[in-house]
Amino acid sequence: MPYASAPFDFDAVDLAAVRRRHHTKWEGAGDGVLALSVAETDFAPAPPVAAALGRALADGDLGYAPPGALGLPAAFAAFAGRHWGWHPDPAAAVPVPEVMVGVVEALRVLTAPGDGVVVETPAYGPYFRVLRETGRTLVPVPLLRTEDGWRRDTEGLRRAFAGGARAMLLCNPHNPTGFLADRAALTAVAGLAAEHGVAVLADEIWAPLVLDGAPGFVPYATLPQGDGARTVVLTSASKAYNVPGLKCALLLPVTEAAAAALRGLPELVSHRISLLGVLAGEAAFAEGDAWLAGLRAYLGEGRDLLTRSLAEHAPAIGYTPQAATYLAWLDLRGLPGGAPTAAEVERRTGVRLSDGEEYGAPGWARLNFGTSTAVLEEAVRRLHAL
Amino acid sequence: MPYASAPFDFDAVDLAAVRRRHHTKWEGAGDGVLALSVAETDFAPAPPVAAALGRALADGDLGYAPPGALGLPAAFAAFAGRHWGWHPDPAAAVPVPEVMVGVVEALRVLTAPGDGVVVETPAYGPYFRVLRETGRTLVPVPLLRTEDGWRRDTEGLRRAFAGGARAMLLCNPHNPTGFLADRAALTAVAGLAAEHGVAVLADEIWAPLVLDGAPGFVPYATLPQGDGARTVVLTSASKAYNVPGLKCALLLPVTEAAAAALRGLPELVSHRISLLGVLAGEAAFAEGDAWLAGLRAYLGEGRDLLTRSLAEHAPAIGYTPQAATYLAWLDLRGLPGGAPTAAEVERRTGVRLSDGEEYGAPGWARLNFGTSTAVLEEAVRRLHAL
Repeated sequence: MPYASAPFDFDAVDLAAVRRRHHTKWEGAGDGVLALSVAETDFAPAPPVAAALGRALADGDLGYAPPGALGLPAAFAAFAGRHWGWHPDPAAAVPVPEVMVGVVEALRVLTAPGDGVVVETPAYGPYFRVLRETGRTLVPVPLLRTEDGWRRDTEGLRRAFAGGARAMLLCNPHNPTGFLADRAALTAVAGLAAEHGVAVLADEIWAPLVLDGAPGFVPYATLPQGDGARTVVLTSASKAYNVPGLKCALLLPVTEAAAAALRGLPELVSHRISLLGVLAGEAAFAEGDAWLAGLRAYLGEGRDLLTRSLAEHAPAIGYTPQAATYLAWLDLRGLPGGAPTAAEVERRTGVRLSDGEEYGAPGWARLNFGTSTAVLEEAVRRLHAL
Repeated sequence: MPYASAPFDFDAVDLAAVRRRHHTKWEGAGDGVLALSVAETDFAPAPPVAAALGRALADGDLGYAPPGALGLPAAFAAFAGRHWGWHPDPAAAVPVPEVMVGVVEALRVLTAPGDGVVVETPAYGPYFRVLRETGRTLVPVPLLRTEDGWRRDTEGLRRAFAGGARAMLLCNPHNPTGFLADRAALTAVAGLAAEHGVAVLADEIWAPLVLDGAPGFVPYATLPQGDGARTVVLTSASKAYNVPGLKCALLLPVTEAAAAALRGLPELVSHRISLLGVLAGEAAFAEGDAWLAGLRAYLGEGRDLLTRSLAEHAPAIGYTPQAATYLAWLDLRGLPGGAPTAAEVERRTGVRLSDGEEYGAPGWARLNFGTSTAVLEEAVRRLHAL
């Protein structure tokens, strides 16, 4: 099968090397198991990332990262400008070890203990855990599933904001559904947030992974924010460039009120970033466009393969083809015998998925198609037997 | 000069490679500057560490670390047994991204906002900052400088504990003085802590770097702890093996009361470790003994060089030869014209030191002798002119 992603050969996943990895995704997966769970891909690192890490290792460059994260904020700002026409101020960026640490610390300065925080469900599991960690109160607002795909419940948000929620975790593009919000929907959120004084933490870690053929990504920061809005964007190279173990992300305050709040962060937060995360992220955003373009094309073909294969051979599994991410959100509730848990799926098929329970949605499962066509075809073939 | 450290050639510091590093120590150091400040060394990585990182890079093993930190706790436990006769339970270890994150999180579960926390001064600067971050109250107890070297003020600790302090940060071996506590002094601390119900966080990150000829390191966990004592040891490979940018450390509860408290830590804390920190640390503790022995011998000779050179050529600089670490604590207050700041020292000599102010001791400076003899000789020669 020819791929638009040449000259990067994403087909050439070396499954033996992948099985040698120590990361969480393939941990404990025996020879018979295909791990399509944790949000990491099976692809080799992007060449500029591998080169940066190789240089660091050769120079013994394994020490404390400068807390300003060197050229990473500027590289991201240039990336955002090239791809989305958004020009964040790199000098305002606050480096943090990872997006979820950024959420924890930002919630501590933007809200008070007990405050309500809106999370759209299903949600990335750690969203629930960081609210417990910070003692904030979960205010769930379910996404809506329609004939046309997933969409945001603007009226639900209005009720939650009017009911006293003080902040919102906005995941866009959305994990686990792959839903990508359009400008009109985001503008509505920003208007409501301004009206009700709700701080918005926009987690845009998946933004570089909008798949080919989908509408473009709209940065939340490019919307009208309103006077006094407290808006923070969170990003990292970790998802698009597959380096979540390297630990570096950025908080980008969009408004002066948000920047003022972030000045109250503990001094050491930015000292906790990993130097290799900084160097990998800078190389990725500065030199990784060509590789990323190939990846987006390849993932788009994976999404299409999954769509066709499920529709033809496993129509009882519900799936709404997605615009972004490599995470497919599968409704298993229509299967004969009812929805199996992910553990049951693994036992019966040798395919490891993430259980919907973790996302607040039992009966669903998340499938990671960030792998070679060969692995994906085999995995989906096995799922036909469910 | 022949070194006991063969076959590892610590003399062979490649200053060009070191200057290419992006880490904090050499950041912004022009050609004329020798950076002897931030606690990182100029040596090449230990061969097993470099090999582990090379394998990870080759396999694209850059994803999420399993939160149990793979074989790192067991490798550290075996290391502690071989070197110190201490056998911590690896199953009780709680991985954290770095020792200071561990201190923050442990303080949150062991103490309450506003509680007094004892810090012996001078102290590693982040000790002060984590107390501000957690809203705890600094209770300083100065170390004593005697004819025989630095020692702990046991009576001062007794007063602080009796006065209501709820926890103590015990840095042993001690940064910045290099002071190594003996068993009797530590036993006195443990007795007082038990008597007054004070939780002890024993930061033993420097323990592998006791220099040749010094008495052996005594793990705080090997002392009688008393009923209900809440004792936690913190450690990492990051100092001895020079990988502070890789982000992995361990909390080791010494008592059941401490273990119970640590079970209250946020679920995500151990998910925040870096996979490369895990792999580097495991390789270091499992296979790094020979390299470490060479390093300890080399650093011992560096300490001796510094001692001789200051005594002969700069007797106005006060220095108590130390038993551990590669950080020398220099009293500049006897210099003609008074003590210069570190910034003044750099301007006048091109030698970058850490200013004592950061450690709560203006007029002092910390010199990092974790470098080649050639660099150290040149740096000390320049300091003679102060």
